[in-house]
Amino acid sequence: MKPIIDPYGSELIADYQKLITDFGLEPFPANAFPNPNRLMRRNIIFAGRGLDAIAKAIREHKPYYVLTGIMPTAEKIHLGTKMVIEQVKYYQDHGAETYVLVADLEAAAAREVTLDEAKNRALAFHIPAYIALGLNPKKTTFYFQSENKQVMHLAYEFSHKITLNEFRAVYGNADPARILSALTQAGDILYPQLAKRMPGIIPTGPDQDPHLRLARDIVRRSRDRKFIMPSSSYHKFMPALNGAMKMSKSHPESYVELPEEASSIKKKINRALTGGRDTLEEHKRLGAAIEKDMVFELLKFHLIEDDQELQRIHGSYKAGTMASGEIKRIAIERLTAFMADFEKKLDAARKLVDRLGFVRFT
Amino acid sequence: MKPIIDPYGSELIADYQKLITDFGLEPFPANAFPNPNRLMRRNIIFAGRGLDAIAKAIREHKPYYVLTGIMPTAEKIHLGTKMVIEQVKYYQDHGAETYVLVADLEAAAAREVTLDEAKNRALAFHIPAYIALGLNPKKTTFYFQSENKQVMHLAYEFSHKITLNEFRAVYGNADPARILSALTQAGDILYPQLAKRMPGIIPTGPDQDPHLRLARDIVRRSRDRKFIMPSSSYHKFMPALNGAMKMSKSHPESYVELPEEASSIKKKINRALTGGRDTLEEHKRLGAAIEKDMVFELLKFHLIEDDQELQRIHGSYKAGTMASGEIKRIAIERLTAFMADFEKKLDAARKLVDRLGFVRFT
Repeated sequence: MKPIIDPYGSELIADYQKLITDFGLEPFPANAFPNPNRLMRRNIIFAGRGLDAIAKAIREHKPYYVLTGIMPTAEKIHLGTKMVIEQVKYYQDHGAETYVLVADLEAAAAREVTLDEAKNRALAFHIPAYIALGLNPKKTTFYFQSENKQVMHLAYEFSHKITLNEFRAVYGNADPARILSALTQAGDILYPQLAKRMPGIIPTGPDQDPHLRLARDIVRRSRDRKFIMPSSSYHKFMPALNGAMKMSKSHPESYVELPEEASSIKKKINRALTGGRDTLEEHKRLGAAIEKDMVFELLKFHLIEDDQELQRIHGSYKAGTMASGEIKRIAIERLTAFMADFEKKLDAARKLVDRLGFVRFT
Repeated sequence: MKPIIDPYGSELIADYQKLITDFGLEPFPANAFPNPNRLMRRNIIFAGRGLDAIAKAIREHKPYYVLTGIMPTAEKIHLGTKMVIEQVKYYQDHGAETYVLVADLEAAAAREVTLDEAKNRALAFHIPAYIALGLNPKKTTFYFQSENKQVMHLAYEFSHKITLNEFRAVYGNADPARILSALTQAGDILYPQLAKRMPGIIPTGPDQDPHLRLARDIVRRSRDRKFIMPSSSYHKFMPALNGAMKMSKSHPESYVELPEEASSIKKKINRALTGGRDTLEEHKRLGAAIEKDMVFELLKFHLIEDDQELQRIHGSYKAGTMASGEIKRIAIERLTAFMADFEKKLDAARKLVDRLGFVRFT
């Protein structure tokens, strides 16, 4: 299977092919995975490492795991996180043991929040949000980094497996905080294998690849541990609504948060950069400059599940028979509906988290 | 009070005055401490940092703590460790809350032993040995680094307080394993202050001063924590029996271990470097070259408690009326008696550790 709508947007963002070449990544083999999800089909999940091992585990119904993290400093999550959770859900639905770590230690170490605040924030929002986005709480192991001694022990052990210069080659910066954080992440990545030797996948952005490279180097040097090399998949970045390379915290108009109010969604989409032409006449004649259209990106990344529907919109918009006002209307309608659904599920998940007896910290 | 027998041996070992000057240490103010012990009186404890705060806490009966560690890789301890425990006991007898950490994480990280082996070794030997050397088990908090999440959390937090270059300036080497180990040690040093803000002293060798400097730098940069600056005291190194600068694992004849058999003690002392002259006639005429005499050092550091008795031996030996055979005989007799007593106490302490319900690890 070829990716269906890949060419339409990647040039907006970055040269993903160059990333693949420069870092020796594997192009994501969507055809090796059963029932690939929207992100896989559209080549938004574009690359990774060790993907054959995961596809094989799925095909052969062998044990494997998927792992992601929560950084409980922020009070909301953004659409990039939603993409990761959709990937985690895909693997969970295809037999993966699911681990979600709360990076409370890292959040607290920067002293932006206390350890208890970090934990409680994760319990009050992030964990329910991940459940609202589709994770099955009964099939997901949530853990706090600060409570997980085995992860700390692995970090300690792994510190003996890498020199400062090697660390610098992977990360550039090699300050003590970075080193401790990276070793702890390597501990998180391999922690599920302490219980069971199995392949595991970390779906994330390509900016997180250094952590995977470090973890894979450590596996090579820890033969007595007999770890299986961890795998990863990388998603493209949803471009900012204003057309910038990446969404940015310092420009709230550039991204949509979860949750976000309907009025704010409407305003942001209406102000987004589109490929509409200056006049209606010109738009009809030339068609939309769809490769510059952030609202179409939003439909493609998040809001239109059906590939044929997306193809139709793409066709009409590019042909100039659909105006940019129309595509904005579709995006506002879908995103508002999605958000209402998310908030309803978030409320339910909060009650569930309480009921399941997750401990609050004082 | 002036140190009583200081001048007799320090030149054997190293230029301790230069250490004090070069590293900005404080000379140890033995006269500020009530009933100074043998090591303090003889200026074997020669320097430290922040010692006034500790002397003041003792005088004013204010809370303070003393902390030391166990490295459970070795199967025995040596006389240098005995010196440290004697210091810890002094502070414990003078009101200090006493903490002894087992560096099982560090021992296991180097993969010389497993975490469980490290813990069990500490339980089977090191903890009983520390009790046999005088620590009151009911007044001592023993903890395993690997079980102490708060120490790990501090290490994580402290990683944000120091840059790589600062680390390198303190330690020379800044490999990840070193960094993690040093940050964990800083966590250990300050951990007792999480329960109670109070001064604390770490009695150790001057080679451990970098850990104290790091911990003190971290305190300066962690104002919100309101830690009190930790203090330290440093002991001179017992010279090797063969006259080398320091006892060395690769030369077992150069040091005495605890426990050690009587026959082995006898052999090692009989072969030790002494200040005896080549002939008895010469010895009587010139007196012993006592500044080169390792057996006299052993008496001074460890075996003769009474200062006047040590003075008498020093006088006779230097005057040539006591032969080196005689000083060896005294050392063998005392050390053999000490070792028999230690082994008896070690057996009792092992039973006590079992009875107190320290957990074995499987």
